[in-house]
Amino acid sequence: MKIQGEDKKALWSDGSVVHFIDQRKLPYSIEIFTAKTVDDIAFAIKDMVVRGAPAIGAAAVYGMAIGKSNIEKTSDILRSTRPTAYDLFYAITYMQNQIKTGVDAFQAAQHYVNEIIANCKKIGEYGESLIKKNMNILTHCNAGALATVDYGTALAPFRIAHQKGKNFFVYADETRPRIQGLLTSWELYQEGIPHAVIADNAAGYFMKQGKIDMVITGADRITKNGDFANKIGTYEKAVLAKENNIPFYVAAPSSTFDDSLKKGCDIIIEQRDASELRVINGNEIMPDWVEVCNPAFDVTPHTYVTGYITEKGIQKKIS
Amino acid sequence: MKIQGEDKKALWSDGSVVHFIDQRKLPYSIEIFTAKTVDDIAFAIKDMVVRGAPAIGAAAVYGMAIGKSNIEKTSDILRSTRPTAYDLFYAITYMQNQIKTGVDAFQAAQHYVNEIIANCKKIGEYGESLIKKNMNILTHCNAGALATVDYGTALAPFRIAHQKGKNFFVYADETRPRIQGLLTSWELYQEGIPHAVIADNAAGYFMKQGKIDMVITGADRITKNGDFANKIGTYEKAVLAKENNIPFYVAAPSSTFDDSLKKGCDIIIEQRDASELRVINGNEIMPDWVEVCNPAFDVTPHTYVTGYITEKGIQKKIS
Repeated sequence: MKIQGEDKKALWSDGSVVHFIDQRKLPYSIEIFTAKTVDDIAFAIKDMVVRGAPAIGAAAVYGMAIGKSNIEKTSDILRSTRPTAYDLFYAITYMQNQIKTGVDAFQAAQHYVNEIIANCKKIGEYGESLIKKNMNILTHCNAGALATVDYGTALAPFRIAHQKGKNFFVYADETRPRIQGLLTSWELYQEGIPHAVIADNAAGYFMKQGKIDMVITGADRITKNGDFANKIGTYEKAVLAKENNIPFYVAAPSSTFDDSLKKGCDIIIEQRDASELRVINGNEIMPDWVEVCNPAFDVTPHTYVTGYITEKGIQKKIS
Repeated sequence: MKIQGEDKKALWSDGSVVHFIDQRKLPYSIEIFTAKTVDDIAFAIKDMVVRGAPAIGAAAVYGMAIGKSNIEKTSDILRSTRPTAYDLFYAITYMQNQIKTGVDAFQAAQHYVNEIIANCKKIGEYGESLIKKNMNILTHCNAGALATVDYGTALAPFRIAHQKGKNFFVYADETRPRIQGLLTSWELYQEGIPHAVIADNAAGYFMKQGKIDMVITGADRITKNGDFANKIGTYEKAVLAKENNIPFYVAAPSSTFDDSLKKGCDIIIEQRDASELRVINGNEIMPDWVEVCNPAFDVTPHTYVTGYITEKGIQKKIS
C-alpha cells in the first residue's frame, strides 16, 4: 500500500515486537502502535488498533510467536478477543501446529503473513478482470490493505486495475458506526483512485439510479454453504444489489473460509459497545439517555452472492 | 407533544412572528428560533431549523402571512427554499388562494396549521390499530411532532398506542447524514416510549433476525401512483422489508400527496451540502480531501408499500 507515496504495510514485525498503523487514529493522523506482549496484541485486536479478518490473523500469528513459551494460554487470550473473524482462529491453529514441529515461531508467523499478502495480490489480479472501463463500484467497510496487511481483499482489484491504467469510480459506504469508509477513502486517496464517500443510506439510491455497476466487499467468515459474515450493513447492500440486478462479489483468502460451520446462522455475531455509535473521533454525538443496539456484523446468505474472489480464482458457487 | 412533561408544539405564531423549536440544536439543547420576516422563514426552512414536510408547510403558511403584502415575491422566496417536500408548494398555493379572498392571512395560516395537527392526530388513531401487543416497529428519520407541528405522522400511531397503554418497542434508524434518529429518540424519550437507536446499517440485521414486525415512515411527496420521496435510506428499508415479508406503511396527510406528478421518477431530489456528512454537532469527522455525494432523499416505488396511513384511513393502494 502507498502512504504518502511510499510502499508500506499495515503491520509488521522485527522478530520480537509488532508494529501496527493505529487504525483508531486514521485518517486523522498516522500513528504507530507497538505491541510487545501477548496482552498488547490482544488489546490491539479488541480495541481495533488492527481490524479486518486477514489482518487480525496476521496480528494473531505474531502474538502466538511472542507467547510461544505458553501456547495454550496464549491461544486462549487471543481467541477470546473477537468472535466473528475466522482468520483469527485459523491463524492460531496454524501457529499451534507450527510451534509443535519446533520451527522458529517468528519465521512461521512471517511465512503466514507473506502468504496473506501474496494471496491478496492474487485476489487483486483475479478480481481486476471484473472491472470494465468506466465502471462504478460500491464497497462497504474497509477491506483494504489496512484490513489485510497489504493490497486488501475488496480493494485489491482496485489497486491492480488502477496500476493497469483502467478508469473506474468507487463509491465507499461511510460504514457507521465505526466509519471505516474513511479508511477506504484514505487508502484510495493515497493510491489516487477516484472515489466518493456516501452515507450508508444512499447506496440504494445510487443503485436504483443505475450508478452502481458492481459491489465488492470483504468477509469476516464464510461458511461451507457460502453464507458469510461481514461488517454490519453488508446484508443490506447485498439485498439491494440483488433487487437492482447488480453483481455482488465477496473477496476473501482461504483463511476466511470456515468449513466447520454449515451455514451463516451458525456464526457468532459480536455485539459491540454502544459508545461506537455515541462517540465519533472522541466527540459524543448522542446524549446519555439514548439507548443503542450495536451489532458489529451481519450474515449475508449465499443466494445474494454472484461470486467469491479468492487467491485461487473466481468461484461462482461454493457448494 | 410532551417536552419535559408539558404539552408543546414544534412551532407556533402569535399572529406576527413565528417561533420554532430549533431542530439544529436538538437533542443537545432546547432553543427557540424566532422568525420575523419572510427571509427568516426561508432561512429556517433551508437551514433545517424546521424540517419534515408538514412542518415545512406550516412554516410556509406563516411565512405567506408575514409577506402577504407582496404575495408573488413571498411565494417565490419560499418556493425556492427546498424542492422535494410537496407540503411546501401545497401550503403556498393554499395561502395564495386564501389571501385573494381577503380573509385575515394569519387566521388562514392558523387554520391550516390546526388542520395539520388534527390530521396527524387522525393518522395516529388509524395507525394505532396496526400496532399489536409487543410489536417491534422500525422507523426511519424523524416523522414526529417536530416534523408536523404536533403528533407526527409515523410517530402519531406510537403516541396514541402508548396513551392506550399498549406495549411495543421502536427501533429508530440513526438516519445519517443528519442523524434525525436522535430527534425521534428525543420525542420517544419525552413520551416514555421504549426504543433504541440503531445504525442505519443494522436495520436489515434486525429484520432478518425476525426482530422487526412492521415499518412505518413518513413521506415528503407522494405521487399519483403511490411512489414516494422520503429521507435518504427509506428505499433501502422498504426493499429490506419486502425481502423479509415485513409490512411497510407510509404515514402522511393529504397535503403530501401530489397528484400532478404521475410517478416517483418525476420528483426532484435535493442534493445537499457535503458538510452534512463531514460535520456532526459542529465537529468535523472527515478530512478535507474526502469527496462526498449527499442526496437528501430517495424515491420508493409503490410496489414496496403495504399501505398509506392518512387522516382518511388506511389505504391499501392509491391507484
